[in-house]
Amino acid sequence: MTERLVVIGGDAAGMTAAARARRRRDPDDLEIVAFERGPYTSYSACGIPYFVGGLLSDIDGLIARSPDEHRKNGIDVRTGHEVVAIDVNPRRVRVRDLAGDGRERDEPFDQLVVATGSVPSRPDVPGVDAAGIFGVQTLADGVTVRQAVDERKPRRAVVVGGGYVGLEMAEALVRRGLEVALVDRTEQPMASTLDLDMGELVADALRAVGVSLHLGETVDGFETASGSVRAVHTANRSLPADVVILGLGVRPNIALASEAGIAVGDKGGIVTDARMETSVGGVWAAGDCVESVDRITGLPVVVALGTHANKQGRVVGINATGGDVRFPGVVGTAVSKICVYEVARTGLTEREAAELHVDVVAAKVESTSRAGYYPGAAPITVKVVAERPGGRLVGAQIVGAEGAAKRIDVLATAIWNRMGVDEVASLDLSYAPPFSPVWDPVLVAARKAADLVG
Amino acid sequence: MTERLVVIGGDAAGMTAAARARRRRDPDDLEIVAFERGPYTSYSACGIPYFVGGLLSDIDGLIARSPDEHRKNGIDVRTGHEVVAIDVNPRRVRVRDLAGDGRERDEPFDQLVVATGSVPSRPDVPGVDAAGIFGVQTLADGVTVRQAVDERKPRRAVVVGGGYVGLEMAEALVRRGLEVALVDRTEQPMASTLDLDMGELVADALRAVGVSLHLGETVDGFETASGSVRAVHTANRSLPADVVILGLGVRPNIALASEAGIAVGDKGGIVTDARMETSVGGVWAAGDCVESVDRITGLPVVVALGTHANKQGRVVGINATGGDVRFPGVVGTAVSKICVYEVARTGLTEREAAELHVDVVAAKVESTSRAGYYPGAAPITVKVVAERPGGRLVGAQIVGAEGAAKRIDVLATAIWNRMGVDEVASLDLSYAPPFSPVWDPVLVAARKAADLVG
Repeated sequence: MTERLVVIGGDAAGMTAAARARRRRDPDDLEIVAFERGPYTSYSACGIPYFVGGLLSDIDGLIARSPDEHRKNGIDVRTGHEVVAIDVNPRRVRVRDLAGDGRERDEPFDQLVVATGSVPSRPDVPGVDAAGIFGVQTLADGVTVRQAVDERKPRRAVVVGGGYVGLEMAEALVRRGLEVALVDRTEQPMASTLDLDMGELVADALRAVGVSLHLGETVDGFETASGSVRAVHTANRSLPADVVILGLGVRPNIALASEAGIAVGDKGGIVTDARMETSVGGVWAAGDCVESVDRITGLPVVVALGTHANKQGRVVGINATGGDVRFPGVVGTAVSKICVYEVARTGLTEREAAELHVDVVAAKVESTSRAGYYPGAAPITVKVVAERPGGRLVGAQIVGAEGAAKRIDVLATAIWNRMGVDEVASLDLSYAPPFSPVWDPVLVAARKAADLVG
Repeated sequence: MTERLVVIGGDAAGMTAAARARRRRDPDDLEIVAFERGPYTSYSACGIPYFVGGLLSDIDGLIARSPDEHRKNGIDVRTGHEVVAIDVNPRRVRVRDLAGDGRERDEPFDQLVVATGSVPSRPDVPGVDAAGIFGVQTLADGVTVRQAVDERKPRRAVVVGGGYVGLEMAEALVRRGLEVALVDRTEQPMASTLDLDMGELVADALRAVGVSLHLGETVDGFETASGSVRAVHTANRSLPADVVILGLGVRPNIALASEAGIAVGDKGGIVTDARMETSVGGVWAAGDCVESVDRITGLPVVVALGTHANKQGRVVGINATGGDVRFPGVVGTAVSKICVYEVARTGLTEREAAELHVDVVAAKVESTSRAGYYPGAAPITVKVVAERPGGRLVGAQIVGAEGAAKRIDVLATAIWNRMGVDEVASLDLSYAPPFSPVWDPVLVAARKAADLVG
């Protein structure tokens, strides 16, 4: 008898699971149906700022695999279909046909993949639903924002939220010629991912391209005229705005799962085991909607990144078809390009360590991305956080010029392997003048931390 | 009573040891004397090709610390002084004053650091001592070659030897406008560090900038006129040459140590323990003249790289002054920039594995350095070598455009920690479109290798 695998959500996690399952089982043996609310599948949401900023002319570049391509591979993709309920006994989902007749139908499943992604935070203030205020979560959002910039020729933009997405969008809008202001309730950009001292470098880079930063301020409301946004209000000021970008972060989209009785954890994501199976047998989850295990602390965390979505989707696709593989957790690695800087982090910041009552030392070094004498050598600042006593590497942050940020991967790999900073400083890393000083900045920072640990 | 630490060799290993010892012990307590045959100390030999190629105007950029700077730090540096013999009982070295009266004197020591570096290989063929034939080992060599190119305006160059140095010099001479031919006895450039399939990419890059490659050919002799080189002869051809660069590799310079009864290993380097102490107590060695432990095989290897010299020098400086630290070995990481490519390697090649009778699988993938849609995305080829059965990562090679090569450090760190390729494929590496496809090429290669291991 043919089994039926149903996937909720047509982006990275869901479609990676579907495609992997398809490679492992014949259509005669396993029917795979994927429901996606929007028009696109398997796209790079991370690329939206570059599309809006004009670095790419065509949205197609951001689509790794279209619905038709998935269909050719034997996956029954139904775009414009929203799953509105999950029933685990009997095993079925209720699906609304948004594009067609609007009716709801029940669709049975044997195995279910919940890949519902995340919900963007929106401030609950007057005027937030005005025209000209955009989120940038889905590819459709990206298309909408780009159209607005292309066609309405806005002059002034306000970005609300100083995380990666907000900063990348601020830079994109500067590139499109807009005057850009950024409002964030914290004292620095990237407050949730970088320590203050490293975030200040990022703030400088933003100011250098003309972004005006209004930090430590919260949006009270949006001024509108004829239904369109005109200004953003904080306690301190009113910022004129023809367009507003909301970059306030996301939370796991767990409503369907929660209502179906699938366990949700303290961090707000769906709970799975290392095989990505939820509390309900044969119901799997992957991507932005789940909690992952932080390998440093052993605690659950929610990290909404495409790289995890892809890896988890693969694990689900294998396990839902009789395989047995594991998602081994995360260490909190992330990277972004913000104006002149590459910015990267992994593990715990000093602040996060303090919140977790982990005693740490931090060492920060300034070095160069290449040998000092080699053309193009540019500044790089590396900060390393180590547990005390013992000296286990628990975190790192890098801000620097081209070639700086990917070095975070060495430190992420070292954290993954629970290395001490003393041993990290001895690593056999590549050296040649076009690539590094003879002591790579990563080694210097680790050595300095080791000396501090004593 | 004041102890006396004598250092033989004023480059990276020796002077790092001296400087580190100086920071740990007062001059009243420890006298430090360093003998260096040449005029320079603490320089970057790796930078010579860029100096010859004109990327740097000034040799001073390559000098990390001059003799005078070392002297200001309380190290008695004697340049132009060659140590001609070591006596371990009584403990003294015999030193010839090359610059001054040419006489030899005995200098006593309590602790001795042997940092005699390496000896460049020279072909034992007619004409090899002709004018116009240059090695590029020391900074003095670099100055000589650059002067020759600047002043004599040679038109045609032949580089003998296709290792890193030979290739970097070939590129440098192309940049200076010379016609360049390269002769190597093996079938491909970098035969000792890359597998054939990866070396072919490098060969293509060299040909693309106009270097004519004569591979599988050995130099039989040099044609001279009035004492100057005119041509390079192989069995197959005669290559006209106004200037010849010898890049045939180096071997440890162990003559002094060997004559003093200090143990030398099968690989031709001075044997030390992990504290870098030789077979004679209180006699230490570091840098190109020593054997290191390969962490993959546990076997001794000789790797002449500044990065190891610095690390080993630090270990010696600490241990020779009563400390207790270890040099934990190497995994064979190296990187070079050759024309359009960045070229990197770590661990064992397929060929090396075969020679060691290690059963391996190799996986090679072609990907891009950035997300495919991001401007500047360029090809990168990653090859991963894994032990079978078990899947332990034992080696990797990368050839690609800007941003490609430093990824080798992730794989070097993974090898260091004895990771399996399956786990490597799960690593939490940084992802954002300007830096990587959502699956970093390193992860894709590791995954493919894991699938091959089964």
